[in-house]
Amino acid sequence: MFNVIAISRQFGSGGRTVGREAAKRLNIPCYDHELIEKVATSSGFSKDYVESQGEYANHRSWIGQALEHTGRFDCMSNQDKIWVEQRKIIIELSKEPCVIVGRCADYILRDRKDVLRAFIHADDASRAERIVKLYGEKADKPEKRLKDKDKRRAAYYRYYTDTDWGEAVNYHIALDSGVLGIDKCADILVNIYKSN
Amino acid sequence: MFNVIAISRQFGSGGRTVGREAAKRLNIPCYDHELIEKVATSSGFSKDYVESQGEYANHRSWIGQALEHTGRFDCMSNQDKIWVEQRKIIIELSKEPCVIVGRCADYILRDRKDVLRAFIHADDASRAERIVKLYGEKADKPEKRLKDKDKRRAAYYRYYTDTDWGEAVNYHIALDSGVLGIDKCADILVNIYKSN
Repeated sequence: MFNVIAISRQFGSGGRTVGREAAKRLNIPCYDHELIEKVATSSGFSKDYVESQGEYANHRSWIGQALEHTGRFDCMSNQDKIWVEQRKIIIELSKEPCVIVGRCADYILRDRKDVLRAFIHADDASRAERIVKLYGEKADKPEKRLKDKDKRRAAYYRYYTDTDWGEAVNYHIALDSGVLGIDKCADILVNIYKSN
Repeated sequence: MFNVIAISRQFGSGGRTVGREAAKRLNIPCYDHELIEKVATSSGFSKDYVESQGEYANHRSWIGQALEHTGRFDCMSNQDKIWVEQRKIIIELSKEPCVIVGRCADYILRDRKDVLRAFIHADDASRAERIVKLYGEKADKPEKRLKDKDKRRAAYYRYYTDTDWGEAVNYHIALDSGVLGIDKCADILVNIYKSN
């Protein structure tokens, strides 16, 4: 029944690794960074710009952009342009079996009955440990980095989907990777994908 | 690793059936109505009263009760008394492997590392169909009955736990029984319980 898995995840929860692992076991592609590259190519923006604007946008910059555009004919902000490109590419990619991580794919594909919508989260301690291991120490403490990214992802999600990020009812399955473990989460997704 | 499964669920999602099915397969008891009986016995209130006050309380009646109690030495409302009894019984029951459905058991046992906290939900259409099948047609339309019960459960949960009912991060696993099916949900819980 399911052909695609769309994973939304908290920063540092290992949701991307869950996606990659599930895709590997199912022998289907997993799109995450590849998606950014595709959006960069088709939109003409740089990869870094797409990455920073495509999921972690912050409100002030939108207002700034909106003001910049006042009175111009092409009044779409860069962020909106990236959203439109992302959406197109996600719809295109999801025609074939795959795993897609982030970028509101769960919302964009919400009317497709063959798309399993998953949310991966974990307690703050597990996530803090994970981001320090993966991305190293930074000036800001890991707890602050988590809070900041969560807030910006939630705001981005809310802005473009008009629904709340992380509400259980918006997903077919939500898993705590801190308690269950990355491997087990991948297992569960693979099992659902195969058995439906 | 897990000895107990605490299930929180939307009205009409089949969460109770998921719990019963998982308990049967694990050969452990499932407490739901039994819990109400125990609370009734130990508190002295009737079963019906415990059922109506123990999970579906509504705000106006609390205010009414609070006013009634003004100036009395024993200022606990009946609802609070039921909460205290429920809590005691849940803690007692959870010393042995079991499944507990509802009654904020997930919150009450939140510090126990061997308690798997699950949330079962489903789309409105599946739930409406289910409650009509189980409880028959009533004067109020099924959609209204769902909305009303959800609202009261959420208010009760919020009042006694100070956290939001149905937020993915509050559970180790959240499942959409409408899409995945009751059997599959039970399967997943049994599998996690056994493999940890």
